[in-house]
Amino acid sequence: MEWGELRELILRRIRPSVEEERLVEAFCRRISGELSERLREAGFKAVAEVHGSVAKGTWLSGERDLDIFILLDPGYERDVIPSVLEVVKRYLGSGWVEAYAEHPYLQARIDEFQVDFVPCFRIRPGEPLKSATDRTPLHTAYVREHLKPEQRDEVRLLKRFMKGIGVYGAELKVGGFSGYLCELLIIHYGSFEELLEAAARWRRGTVIQLEVGPDPRELRRRFGTPLIVVDPIDPNRNVAAPVSEDSFWSFVAASRGFLKAPSEIYFYPREERPEAQEILEALRLRGSDLLFVVIPDSDVDVPDILWGQLYKAEKALRGLLERWGFEVLRSAAWSDEASRHILLYELESATLPIVEKHMGPPVEVVEHSERFLRKHLGSEDLISGPWIEGGRWWILTRRRWTGARELLRHHLEVDGGRGIGVPKRLSRRIREGFSLLLNGEIEPYLEGDFISFLHRFLCGRASWLH
Amino acid sequence: MEWGELRELILRRIRPSVEEERLVEAFCRRISGELSERLREAGFKAVAEVHGSVAKGTWLSGERDLDIFILLDPGYERDVIPSVLEVVKRYLGSGWVEAYAEHPYLQARIDEFQVDFVPCFRIRPGEPLKSATDRTPLHTAYVREHLKPEQRDEVRLLKRFMKGIGVYGAELKVGGFSGYLCELLIIHYGSFEELLEAAARWRRGTVIQLEVGPDPRELRRRFGTPLIVVDPIDPNRNVAAPVSEDSFWSFVAASRGFLKAPSEIYFYPREERPEAQEILEALRLRGSDLLFVVIPDSDVDVPDILWGQLYKAEKALRGLLERWGFEVLRSAAWSDEASRHILLYELESATLPIVEKHMGPPVEVVEHSERFLRKHLGSEDLISGPWIEGGRWWILTRRRWTGARELLRHHLEVDGGRGIGVPKRLSRRIREGFSLLLNGEIEPYLEGDFISFLHRFLCGRASWLH
Repeated sequence: MEWGELRELILRRIRPSVEEERLVEAFCRRISGELSERLREAGFKAVAEVHGSVAKGTWLSGERDLDIFILLDPGYERDVIPSVLEVVKRYLGSGWVEAYAEHPYLQARIDEFQVDFVPCFRIRPGEPLKSATDRTPLHTAYVREHLKPEQRDEVRLLKRFMKGIGVYGAELKVGGFSGYLCELLIIHYGSFEELLEAAARWRRGTVIQLEVGPDPRELRRRFGTPLIVVDPIDPNRNVAAPVSEDSFWSFVAASRGFLKAPSEIYFYPREERPEAQEILEALRLRGSDLLFVVIPDSDVDVPDILWGQLYKAEKALRGLLERWGFEVLRSAAWSDEASRHILLYELESATLPIVEKHMGPPVEVVEHSERFLRKHLGSEDLISGPWIEGGRWWILTRRRWTGARELLRHHLEVDGGRGIGVPKRLSRRIREGFSLLLNGEIEPYLEGDFISFLHRFLCGRASWLH
Repeated sequence: MEWGELRELILRRIRPSVEEERLVEAFCRRISGELSERLREAGFKAVAEVHGSVAKGTWLSGERDLDIFILLDPGYERDVIPSVLEVVKRYLGSGWVEAYAEHPYLQARIDEFQVDFVPCFRIRPGEPLKSATDRTPLHTAYVREHLKPEQRDEVRLLKRFMKGIGVYGAELKVGGFSGYLCELLIIHYGSFEELLEAAARWRRGTVIQLEVGPDPRELRRRFGTPLIVVDPIDPNRNVAAPVSEDSFWSFVAASRGFLKAPSEIYFYPREERPEAQEILEALRLRGSDLLFVVIPDSDVDVPDILWGQLYKAEKALRGLLERWGFEVLRSAAWSDEASRHILLYELESATLPIVEKHMGPPVEVVEHSERFLRKHLGSEDLISGPWIEGGRWWILTRRRWTGARELLRHHLEVDGGRGIGVPKRLSRRIREGFSLLLNGEIEPYLEGDFISFLHRFLCGRASWLH
């Protein structure tokens, strides 16, 4: 299909209709108006305002997530937040949940909308922040001022594209591009296609500045991320900081692929939900070994903290396996974010030969040579040697761990993996119980989202690569 | 045992008795006298002289190898050699064998002596050579002049020590220290013990000069060997050139070990001749895989050429195995120098997992990325991916060779291994027939010297390490 035609098809799905716009705007006006009034009545110098994609006119049709910010007069300090939230609670009556990021905020379902009520302090560009959310109103204002109305669809196409290739969202689980970053990229490059043309040629350390700012080399040194997009309302902030290296290159590669052969698959990847039996068959035929660490968790952290811990644990266990000579082909972490986490490792083989070649010191270094000979000549683990080769001592020794499962079990049982770098809270969960499953033993867990996840892992290919 | 006491015990075994000296000298005098007379009668300006260790008084008791050199007048050219050898043949009557190194020479057994008759041209120090053996008379003269009579026993101790630790002999098979080199080392350091004290501290690039000569740095650059001993009768020659790195460090390490705890074992290692059943049991318990390439050979080359070819072939096959991912723990070559050669490889495992991780180009490099994707996306060998990790493309592919035996068989059957670097003559033998045997399959060949060799290989430890 021609890109022009495809573009219209996709826009038809993601661009809100006039009725939808009217509905959302009316809802926003009502809630912010009512809440502002309640705040005034309660004696607060504060107003409720809609922010996020709705405020900027860049939301995708069907999305019903709203951010309502309560802008407090700069005279207030952070200790005012609880009493402000009390006013919101009274306004909502029931059905709210108190959540906590950097400071507390409220979540509520109203009609078909999922609304976050977030207190923040009104500041002007360049002023110091009282809370991390104080920048949001400035971001809204910047985008409103610089994003032309006809560019809203460009942002929508970009967001849908990024969702499709799996790099949308600044949360730790994704490590991708935030909505605000998408808007800045469109403001900077003009359109979805112009951005993709540029991204196809992006290199590590690409610097994007919408306002005049420091030398790019200086910014590269300071931020060190593959992509640096200076926040136009705060030159000390890199809006692209959450973009992981993998997300960055995925976007670059997908941009190239898309420009060569535009396809709907970039926006709407095929959702495959294979049967458990297919997965088991694939595991059986694969030739490698898949080792799963299943961790039940009855008290899950908020996602960003949870994923931080999972990724650290994944890396820690991978490092352990590699240090003991196991060839880790790939690893990944999965969680339902509610009751169960699974770390998985694809190994060339979960068992290693018992014999291992071990390098000793150069013969030239007298004391090290003596220590090496003293240590190994009497050792029960010595299989062969020591012999001299290439100016060094060498031996064959019995390998301590020939099974990957036994190696992990040992370290997880001792202290939940704390000693090898598993974060504290997760190691506590592990000490309460875990399973180590090899290949087909994962069968009982092949359900719901995990099946799709494992299928994607086994395929190992970006959804848009065909 | 005290070293003083041990030294006497060993000298008693290696120092020829007065009767032996008398016997050997009388024999030498008789042969060289008679042969000189025959040469004179035949009209040659030439004399027969004894050279080698007997001429220098450094032979070990019981050794009956003699070098008789026929020194030709410098007026002759190399084309005279055949007619000179005719005289020797007539003198010997029968029982001689014509051999060939750089030029032809004769070998004969006379009484209990094994005698080499070697023609050479009389030169003076610094004069150009007509044949490689022309230096020998000068070496004899140098040692006779500089080695004190009481130092002959020091040379004998050194030779026996070097034989004991397996580094005696400049031939390619050993890659060790020649008799002349042993004599120069004793002349330079004074005694066996003083040499060992020095060798214990030798470093790579040790330079020894008995006469004033060039800057050591210059010599290190020129020769590049771990040990450089400048020939006092030819400053352009490194007498230690044949000393391999392994022999060098073995001597250094053994010197240290001996000085710490002198023992007879350095001079006379325990000769172990295990039963075939013991070897098979050791192979079974070992955990690694031993792969043997057995090459029958009905027309064996002279040793130095043969071993050159065997070592090259050993290395070529090792390289092949390593390139295809097999972990070669050690390798070695054995030959009876008469009818059979065996290359052996100890592998962590003779089989590899079918899955292999394969690194692609950086995503940043557009054309390479495209070529990589084009090549692998449609490939039947693709198991998983391509995915992006650390800025690069990666895939899991099916390994071409999962069995070491099949890999070697393929390359040896095609062209005798010529294409991967097996030397020509040996590759011809291989094309005539070879066996690839794994572990216990070597049983039919477990006989004679090969049993001892394999036992030492499996033990892998220098004989003096205890």
